[in-house]
Amino acid sequence: MTDLPAMDLAARSQALVTSLPAGGVDALLISKPPNVRWLSGFTGSNGALLVTADGSIVLFTDGRYAEQAQLETSAVGIEVDFVISRTNDADIASWLVERGVVVCGIESHHLTLDRANALAAAAPSVVFESVGPLVDRLRQRKDAGEIARLRQAAAIADQALVQHEAAVLTGGMTERAFARSLENAMFDLGADALSFNTIVASGPNSTRPHATPSERVLTPGDLVVIDFGASIDGYGSDMTRTLAVGGNPTEDQVSLYAAVAESQAAGVSAVRAGVEQVEIDTACRDVLARHGLADAFIHGTGHGIGLEIHEQPILSARSVGILAADLVVTVEPGAYVAERGGVRVEDSVVVMSDGCDPITHFPKGLVPWLSLPMI
Amino acid sequence: MTDLPAMDLAARSQALVTSLPAGGVDALLISKPPNVRWLSGFTGSNGALLVTADGSIVLFTDGRYAEQAQLETSAVGIEVDFVISRTNDADIASWLVERGVVVCGIESHHLTLDRANALAAAAPSVVFESVGPLVDRLRQRKDAGEIARLRQAAAIADQALVQHEAAVLTGGMTERAFARSLENAMFDLGADALSFNTIVASGPNSTRPHATPSERVLTPGDLVVIDFGASIDGYGSDMTRTLAVGGNPTEDQVSLYAAVAESQAAGVSAVRAGVEQVEIDTACRDVLARHGLADAFIHGTGHGIGLEIHEQPILSARSVGILAADLVVTVEPGAYVAERGGVRVEDSVVVMSDGCDPITHFPKGLVPWLSLPMI
Repeated sequence: MTDLPAMDLAARSQALVTSLPAGGVDALLISKPPNVRWLSGFTGSNGALLVTADGSIVLFTDGRYAEQAQLETSAVGIEVDFVISRTNDADIASWLVERGVVVCGIESHHLTLDRANALAAAAPSVVFESVGPLVDRLRQRKDAGEIARLRQAAAIADQALVQHEAAVLTGGMTERAFARSLENAMFDLGADALSFNTIVASGPNSTRPHATPSERVLTPGDLVVIDFGASIDGYGSDMTRTLAVGGNPTEDQVSLYAAVAESQAAGVSAVRAGVEQVEIDTACRDVLARHGLADAFIHGTGHGIGLEIHEQPILSARSVGILAADLVVTVEPGAYVAERGGVRVEDSVVVMSDGCDPITHFPKGLVPWLSLPMI
Repeated sequence: MTDLPAMDLAARSQALVTSLPAGGVDALLISKPPNVRWLSGFTGSNGALLVTADGSIVLFTDGRYAEQAQLETSAVGIEVDFVISRTNDADIASWLVERGVVVCGIESHHLTLDRANALAAAAPSVVFESVGPLVDRLRQRKDAGEIARLRQAAAIADQALVQHEAAVLTGGMTERAFARSLENAMFDLGADALSFNTIVASGPNSTRPHATPSERVLTPGDLVVIDFGASIDGYGSDMTRTLAVGGNPTEDQVSLYAAVAESQAAGVSAVRAGVEQVEIDTACRDVLARHGLADAFIHGTGHGIGLEIHEQPILSARSVGILAADLVVTVEPGAYVAERGGVRVEDSVVVMSDGCDPITHFPKGLVPWLSLPMI
């Protein structure tokens, strides 16, 4: 990809250090892979960072990744000390003891009980203190480089679905073949990767929100729920459309769709910096309840997207907190009714001070490209 | 896929219960997804099992997976009680308290510190006791149904690489395009999924064992390391071949390749039920050391394959334990030398009482299909 604005990774470890309580923590062990990547650029499957109170970074990984770690961190302009070993936790413990670290923060939402116990046993002089999802919280607000990557990923997904309008209209492909074809289109359009396993759920399968594509053939008369995304530099897009295979939905399908589309529009309208996160969920849920579909909405309303496909904030009835500007979140109510079918409509939007800016642009409607009467 | 032998999932929870110390644990919380799948057939991203001392199973998941959980568990003939909720850990704690469970085993190698603490706080009357990777250990030995799926996955990967011999001979594709084409071939041949992110590492990239496919063009004169696999019902194959792009390797490439191929053959020869696992590693390492390549072998020698692409046993210099029959393991030494290039050769083999049975069959050699002098 060309011309995407650079991301300032050095600013991130500085922001992290600044967010630490003064005098509280001498070093921070970052073990969760997307957090490691966000701070250092390193993408290997085995890596952990120690970030010290002055903002310097040590990266622990194994020999398979020695060369890659150097390339990836220097490509993003991050200065890192490397410890290449096979037993990373033992080396992390030694490092802490040798440097006289008194308090080491840990990501207790990621570190396993075994690893926490092993670190404590190997570094008995160190107090390990949970800092919780501190980095996850910092990652919520996206910088210009991150938003540009999410936009590009979303544009690729939009375009891939445009290329599949005819396949929806005619039917005849299996769910699996449709999903693969959509994925190949995203790669052809420049995706680095998929953001998650594509969902193509048709007919009776549409009532399962996380169905796996099957050998079922897309058949005129079906609703088909298509939930998919592309990824650029690790930043994954997320969009769902529900379409009418064959282009001729029944009245009942139109009515179910209309309720979900109205709910989704209400949710998007509620998004702006400063509102309670729970309000987005309430806005969506109220509309569906008015249509007698409260019990048919069996999942949360949305989530942040970024280096993880489900990241903070989670938007649900239990959300606590305020939406801030430059978060990128999904709004994705659905209704799933046995015999009638399932409908979900999802956009990803950038939170702004006066509202939000959708980055997913494929038109809405059951057969939107046929200019059916707008629902 | 047709005619694959059934897997007896009910036998697995019985084996698990039998393996528990008598009177030690009243219930076992299984939180690690491949362990949940192995015991229940459930594949959703959010699920946990409670297995009680009498072998009955309760599956905790959320509304997105309610229908899928029922379908998947009944498809494999498993009887399960369901608890569908949004806050699974709270419901697990309530369940334990209500049933008067005294000691609950936990998978401390998977459960996070936060989840362990939350469970302990919500169920203060329950003693949570680590059972370690008990299920992971049971999963090592594959039944006939599992081996059949691994064989089928490996056969698909073999055939996909056969279809790409010409592309290696001519060069000209980028690493990314080659990887995608190989992946599409596996899907066309019946793969459900990929077992992991395909590695296609050419020329200078070949010295990075876990390189990500790039825009570099496969160029005559390159070595290219191709490490990939297909998956059937969640069981993923794993094979690496190193090939000479253009079909005309240099003497130095032939010599580097010969050392690794000799090492790999020695490792495979060492595999049989009853040997110390470390002997496989030693067999491979000794050959490379004799060729002056001890320091060029910068990773472990192998690992189990199954529902995880890296599972127990891990075969390395630090392995402790004996190989048992019906384990399926990889043998994959490599040598990575700046300026010269990287070579890795990997087969997956079923451990047998008198040796082993490879399930990966693509021929070895730098350009094996050209019938070059055997190296």
